[in-house]
Amino acid sequence: MPDTRPAEAFEPSDAFRAALEQLLIWRRDERHFRCDPLPAGTVAALVATACLAPSVGNAQPWRFVEVQSPARRAGITQIFEQANAAAAQLYQGNQADQYAALKLAGLREAPVHLAVFCDEATATGHGLGRQTMPEMLRYSVVCAVHTLWLAAHARGLGVGWVSILDPHAVRACLDVPLDWSLVAYLCIGWPQEAHATPELERRGWQDRLTVDTLLQTR
Amino acid sequence: MPDTRPAEAFEPSDAFRAALEQLLIWRRDERHFRCDPLPAGTVAALVATACLAPSVGNAQPWRFVEVQSPARRAGITQIFEQANAAAAQLYQGNQADQYAALKLAGLREAPVHLAVFCDEATATGHGLGRQTMPEMLRYSVVCAVHTLWLAAHARGLGVGWVSILDPHAVRACLDVPLDWSLVAYLCIGWPQEAHATPELERRGWQDRLTVDTLLQTR
Repeated sequence: MPDTRPAEAFEPSDAFRAALEQLLIWRRDERHFRCDPLPAGTVAALVATACLAPSVGNAQPWRFVEVQSPARRAGITQIFEQANAAAAQLYQGNQADQYAALKLAGLREAPVHLAVFCDEATATGHGLGRQTMPEMLRYSVVCAVHTLWLAAHARGLGVGWVSILDPHAVRACLDVPLDWSLVAYLCIGWPQEAHATPELERRGWQDRLTVDTLLQTR
Repeated sequence: MPDTRPAEAFEPSDAFRAALEQLLIWRRDERHFRCDPLPAGTVAALVATACLAPSVGNAQPWRFVEVQSPARRAGITQIFEQANAAAAQLYQGNQADQYAALKLAGLREAPVHLAVFCDEATATGHGLGRQTMPEMLRYSVVCAVHTLWLAAHARGLGVGWVSILDPHAVRACLDVPLDWSLVAYLCIGWPQEAHATPELERRGWQDRLTVDTLLQTR
């Protein structure tokens, strides 16, 4: 078979593979941000990189909204606090104390709030690849969020994905089209600390599973 | 503020950032595989890396099933062909011809089939972070799939995400628990060619959108 790899194609090195593994090991869901602003153009650059993510039928259904208005940032923070207070009611005894002590979002400190939506009504991609699994459209947006997260971490930035939110209330607060469903609400900024271990593991909420048990053969 | 970054923390270089961008640019949804097998241990190594992905509440709900049985591989291929024939009926005229000419999966050639499920019944994570957005559990699995995809591409391997499948038929074919929902069915192998442009763009199905239009401010 002829070698059809073009001369300019990317050939990853061993050093790159090792560094990528380190990036994945040190990437955290960040809740402890410094308040200093990001360099101008950072959000646009991260969004441009995120748009390299895979998407079903090349539908690119990701829609990004940077929330700069103090009133809207405060509105989102309130939506989080209501949902978090309701979630706290689920736990009892020791676990309730543990939950109450967790810091689960950095909404007040993070210099950037970025909401990421899926445009459920997009005609882009012409429906390809999502007839039997329509959730593929939202999964494509998740791939963009994860791409942005890695690109941010490669710049030394932390990202926190806040999911303790009523997604309909967020959509109303941000005044976006009804066809857009919230996939992720992200806090972005400089992390206060670096850790190779998830905060929920360090605080005794949930350990890592043994990887061997997660792969089966059929 | 004291510097709380531990001495051994990963500090990405400019060269790493540039290489990561290249990895993202050259990552494709692959449908054209060479048939040669992967080195022993590759799938387990990729799964171990995928388990570094973020997950809501540290729930790690990802479950991986490598499909080695020829009968099951053939069963999945048949499920794909049925779904693809049904999807083809959606298009008319030129677009129908275009759809019929697309190669949308490499199920017959790819040396590895890897199904990725979400364990919807997992107690791991104790429900944290998914009361208002229960879909976060499946989104965590998508992050693991995307992590595996990048790790595979960093080894020169191609990954194709096949979504033109009845997910319930796949679950039955692979005999996995009813609480597991299919998130992704992946073909993994050596790609025949390298491209910086999506196949659906090269074949005129769907161009890239202009990134500027995808970011708004509120």
